[in-house]
Amino acid sequence: MKNTVHLRRIETLKKKLHDMAVDGAWIIRPENRRYLSGFKAEDLQLNESSGSLLISRKACLLITDSRYTAEAAKEARDFEIYTLKKDLAEEFPSLVDGLGIKVLGFEEDFLVWGLHQKLNKGLKKLPGKVRLTPLKGLVEGMREVKDQSEIKALAASARLMDSILAKVIDELEPGLTEKQVAWRIEELAREAGAEGMAFPSIVASGPNSALPHAVPTKRRLRRKEPIVFDVGINLKGYRSDMTRTVFLDTPGPSFRKIYRTVREAQLAALEVIKPGINTAEVDAAARNLIRESGFGEYFGHALGHGVGLATHEGPRLSPRNPVVLKENMVVTVEPGIYIPGKGGVRLEEMVVLRKNGPRILTGDPHFYDF
Amino acid sequence: MKNTVHLRRIETLKKKLHDMAVDGAWIIRPENRRYLSGFKAEDLQLNESSGSLLISRKACLLITDSRYTAEAAKEARDFEIYTLKKDLAEEFPSLVDGLGIKVLGFEEDFLVWGLHQKLNKGLKKLPGKVRLTPLKGLVEGMREVKDQSEIKALAASARLMDSILAKVIDELEPGLTEKQVAWRIEELAREAGAEGMAFPSIVASGPNSALPHAVPTKRRLRRKEPIVFDVGINLKGYRSDMTRTVFLDTPGPSFRKIYRTVREAQLAALEVIKPGINTAEVDAAARNLIRESGFGEYFGHALGHGVGLATHEGPRLSPRNPVVLKENMVVTVEPGIYIPGKGGVRLEEMVVLRKNGPRILTGDPHFYDF
Repeated sequence: MKNTVHLRRIETLKKKLHDMAVDGAWIIRPENRRYLSGFKAEDLQLNESSGSLLISRKACLLITDSRYTAEAAKEARDFEIYTLKKDLAEEFPSLVDGLGIKVLGFEEDFLVWGLHQKLNKGLKKLPGKVRLTPLKGLVEGMREVKDQSEIKALAASARLMDSILAKVIDELEPGLTEKQVAWRIEELAREAGAEGMAFPSIVASGPNSALPHAVPTKRRLRRKEPIVFDVGINLKGYRSDMTRTVFLDTPGPSFRKIYRTVREAQLAALEVIKPGINTAEVDAAARNLIRESGFGEYFGHALGHGVGLATHEGPRLSPRNPVVLKENMVVTVEPGIYIPGKGGVRLEEMVVLRKNGPRILTGDPHFYDF
Repeated sequence: MKNTVHLRRIETLKKKLHDMAVDGAWIIRPENRRYLSGFKAEDLQLNESSGSLLISRKACLLITDSRYTAEAAKEARDFEIYTLKKDLAEEFPSLVDGLGIKVLGFEEDFLVWGLHQKLNKGLKKLPGKVRLTPLKGLVEGMREVKDQSEIKALAASARLMDSILAKVIDELEPGLTEKQVAWRIEELAREAGAEGMAFPSIVASGPNSALPHAVPTKRRLRRKEPIVFDVGINLKGYRSDMTRTVFLDTPGPSFRKIYRTVREAQLAALEVIKPGINTAEVDAAARNLIRESGFGEYFGHALGHGVGLATHEGPRLSPRNPVVLKENMVVTVEPGIYIPGKGGVRLEEMVVLRKNGPRILTGDPHFYDF
């Protein structure tokens, strides 16, 4: 049975390729591969692909090796499966030739230089002298605006993460280690049916919370200090990403002020974010508020990013490279303030952009009212 | 305090660079980065680096962004830490220039084509016209032969994995699902202090065991059918990788024969493997035995691979591209026979090559004597 969602995406891709005067696309990025074909396998290592898609006007081929043939056939119903006999670089040119491709688009931010050189050499030897050309984020661009099935999947992923985190926060006690708590989150995620975590969970307490990318340690949780949770799951391929900062007892005035400032910055961004506004304006709404409160130098990262099959995808909410937001984009809004050596606060919601504004997917409404 | 292990590796690298007439190396591959600097961070996504090393005759720089500055300073003691202000592509040329590099080696199997183009453009604009040249697996080559601290770390990783798997096998019962068992392995690994799994655990029962790269399902374990465990942990960065095939009750004659054949093939390879022999000969020792037993077409993958900071690294034990094995290499020996639709058997040991032969690191001596 053909899968209409994937067929529709492939048709859109083909139209876009036609507009670019490109007559085939070679898709190696795992999320793009899954988006277009339904093939779920991930890549085992940075340099170990589980497969790629070769899409031309006349055919859709999924190229893989014998380890994945069976799964590919089951999952990618709209694709013909080609199992490599030996080596991709050797067999690739004749596959491209077989599909009648003359100009082949490739993912320049995922194809490594070495393989590009090898393939290019092989393709140049073909009678038709196939030319390689960068796709410039074509599929990533398609993925930025979500269809209804994706919004449903992202909402389910966010909702489940949210309920797990609420339970874990409920169980918190001084003396537990960050690692124990991080592990409990994974345990609940797994029991609830998640494919895995979307990224390594962050549970960062006290001074560790000043590291935006902290790794859970054996440090024990204490009262009155910030505990930052930045967590997400992978549910049917779709990622969630949310952050809460928790205190086991009312903190002193400086962390109360920091928390209040971060929350106000988040609300300021949620106030302005909607289709038609540009990403830098949304970022500025939060960033200006933090700057005016005197914490400008302690908010170093971007305000947010798209979420979907990848945890981090377009659009990016940052002061740089503004783009206009569109309906049905799903993004995070996550301001933070980090005081080195002392601690930090970050709050992150995942929202889908509806016509009139954001709908928050991470539903837990519990915030401190310091 | 300087870290002598890393300094020694950097000195070796510098000598090799000198021999290649290259005067700087840019290291982006996470395992190479950790090997040379001690910087532990992993990359969050395929296209999200947590940092890179720029090593010239006169300086060692770790380039990262503000999320990782603190960790980098703590872990990479021999490196000066440079925190990016904006964007790697913008700032990179002047960093290279500052180190007086004219010919810069890069990792062609990890640097994506798009970024290579951007950096190359920037480097060409420098007064010195810096030239980029592929490093051709220089650091990966260094990593193939392990030093004593690495062998210790790999032995510890294998031993711990082994004891966890023995416990899990002990607890097996018909009716448990593959997923439940896979999850139990991760639970024990985490409790035992592993940083994580080395790769997604394979627990594959019945017909699923015929998929060399099976993902655990909700299928329930039954008596008399093969259950393949292919598992490994990441312990202080060092990976283990081992496979056992288990039966909950003596299987019928065909699986007994398959098991016996795989085990004999493994023993044949372990018999010949040692420094000085080439990888294709080791592969052939196992492969010929399987072929002569009539199962040749059911053993599609290579016999083994190096293990270290990466789960899969050089050397590869396969019929192709033979290389001579050296003392203190650590490799897997993992023949398998897979009958589509029926099931498969794979057995995998991790060994370090001592002067006179292999020392098996995955110690569990329990094999069926069918």
